[in-house]
Amino acid sequence: MQKQGVFTERIGGKSEPLFLDKNENPFRLPPSLREEIRQLVSTVDLNRYPDPKAEKVRRALSDLTGVPHSNLIVGNGGDEILSMVFTAFVKKGSKILTLSPCFSQYEELCMRHDANWLRFPLEIGENRVTFDESLFEETIARQTPDVVLLDTPNNPTGKSLPNDFLARFARNFPGVIVVDEAYGEFAPQTFLETFKGSEFPKGLCILKTLSKAWGMAGLRFGYAACSEWVWKKLESVRDIYNVGLLSQEIAAIVLQYREWMESRVLSIRYMRDEFIRALNRVPGWRAYESASNFALVRTGLPGALLLEGLAGSGIYVKPVELAEPGTWIRVTIGKEEEMGRFLDFAQKRL
Amino acid sequence: MQKQGVFTERIGGKSEPLFLDKNENPFRLPPSLREEIRQLVSTVDLNRYPDPKAEKVRRALSDLTGVPHSNLIVGNGGDEILSMVFTAFVKKGSKILTLSPCFSQYEELCMRHDANWLRFPLEIGENRVTFDESLFEETIARQTPDVVLLDTPNNPTGKSLPNDFLARFARNFPGVIVVDEAYGEFAPQTFLETFKGSEFPKGLCILKTLSKAWGMAGLRFGYAACSEWVWKKLESVRDIYNVGLLSQEIAAIVLQYREWMESRVLSIRYMRDEFIRALNRVPGWRAYESASNFALVRTGLPGALLLEGLAGSGIYVKPVELAEPGTWIRVTIGKEEEMGRFLDFAQKRL
Repeated sequence: MQKQGVFTERIGGKSEPLFLDKNENPFRLPPSLREEIRQLVSTVDLNRYPDPKAEKVRRALSDLTGVPHSNLIVGNGGDEILSMVFTAFVKKGSKILTLSPCFSQYEELCMRHDANWLRFPLEIGENRVTFDESLFEETIARQTPDVVLLDTPNNPTGKSLPNDFLARFARNFPGVIVVDEAYGEFAPQTFLETFKGSEFPKGLCILKTLSKAWGMAGLRFGYAACSEWVWKKLESVRDIYNVGLLSQEIAAIVLQYREWMESRVLSIRYMRDEFIRALNRVPGWRAYESASNFALVRTGLPGALLLEGLAGSGIYVKPVELAEPGTWIRVTIGKEEEMGRFLDFAQKRL
Repeated sequence: MQKQGVFTERIGGKSEPLFLDKNENPFRLPPSLREEIRQLVSTVDLNRYPDPKAEKVRRALSDLTGVPHSNLIVGNGGDEILSMVFTAFVKKGSKILTLSPCFSQYEELCMRHDANWLRFPLEIGENRVTFDESLFEETIARQTPDVVLLDTPNNPTGKSLPNDFLARFARNFPGVIVVDEAYGEFAPQTFLETFKGSEFPKGLCILKTLSKAWGMAGLRFGYAACSEWVWKKLESVRDIYNVGLLSQEIAAIVLQYREWMESRVLSIRYMRDEFIRALNRVPGWRAYESASNFALVRTGLPGALLLEGLAGSGIYVKPVELAEPGTWIRVTIGKEEEMGRFLDFAQKRL
């Protein structure tokens, strides 16, 4: 028995913790990328400051996105770019409108900057999440926010807003509109690519990160693609050495692995849709359609019991608080065997 | 002739640029440290987020400093800790008192946060820089700043404030006192080590970095040692993933190289004092005594001519604007042959 236990552990058995709580990418770096980073470490002069303008990596990002490098700004993770947006555009009492629910950091930043946080609710129905375009426009006209901050795909619902609607809105909105596409690559099309070769509306800022599709959450590298006006404002509050030498160099290397990234994204998207279909076949569970690398899941099990049960199986997920009845969690999409463990758990809890 | 040119370049001749402008440490990483980082790259899971509490590296910092890890907070370079100090403690119109001159980022941050910037002048005499303790105390009593932010050793003068005076002041001052010891290791004693084993006054925050003495400017790793009260305030405005996985791990490794750091610091201190003595023997030049890894230098040459001449010799220094007559520059202390190049230049400009 003991031998079997060891064997189970070695092949990644149930006793090994499974983190489906932080929307990380389950795939580790490919060996050739790791080797390139090792070679970098052999030569890099860490006693010198990084390039304050991050030219090399911004040019690599420009090659990737088709956006001129003069419209790109880099940060210590998407979180720092969000902080810069708030420092640049939010004063005490400024009105910030987000979706509800949304990425938890938005509330945190509104509090930190004494802003007035306005929420536009997504409708969470029995089977799907919907975004009411005309109600949104009415709300904007009535509430006149200074900054509109939209995560699409939305966290934690996985709902993606229509790119044509967003583009039209961005062209007409007089304030600052921040579109947080941290999970954009998992959707059928990114909002950013719809701007390839065309000019950004004055108030538009699109946030991107290497933490999700690119699988580099540990690196802390994010960027914004934005109008010239937004760029100057963000640049004026950026600490000049905000992204380290290794981070700049590693990001520039990683960006050459676009095919690797895309194949991993395709795997995750396939696995996500399979997982959602499979979980919806289990009575008492409901997984919502998602354009991201996670799924919003509802169950009738009491929350504490559910989390305790999952933790007992070594599975960690993110609890979600919603007004709608039921227990809600957000489940990151991992590899096939990892999602199998979650499905096993759900089936046993019939 | 051409052959000699190539040879000169290969042995680090005058045509190779010499950066004495950013107070970087001239020594590259030791091979064994580089090898440890390479091994780290082989195993690290960059697809996972870093430890949000940075426990391992904070414990390594605690071992180094003797300060409990619960009083330590880490940042993406000292710059980020400074930003956190401003976000946590500075509102529009808050009064911030610094020395004058001081680190240029302080003015930048005061502007960014709409703060009221008050300056206490160091006296820059013919031969030395002095700090008037009683005038400082009178100024504090009269101006009642909310935050006192002192860089010691001061940038760009190299002046170190007396630790006993600072400690007494920190115990009595009712607001927040930030002591920026970015260059502390180059002084005879750091302010931080005077607090080893004793409690921090409520408003005290001491800033440190791995960019200078530790020679890791490219890494972006800074930390603060502070009271429990300051810690909670800073922690409340810290992005939880503000220091990347590689940065945390590399910093924890680097901190094991304390003897290496100390021997490099001793070399730089020795070179600094030799350089200052030598430059002061050159007519028309004055180098001020320094407790840091740079020296404030005055000359009668017109500023543009001086910088152009230096750049013509491939030497880059930082121009300093002071009200006192003369042309002022800040010269980073490099290796012996590097300082020799600067001295050669000065001697030829007699």
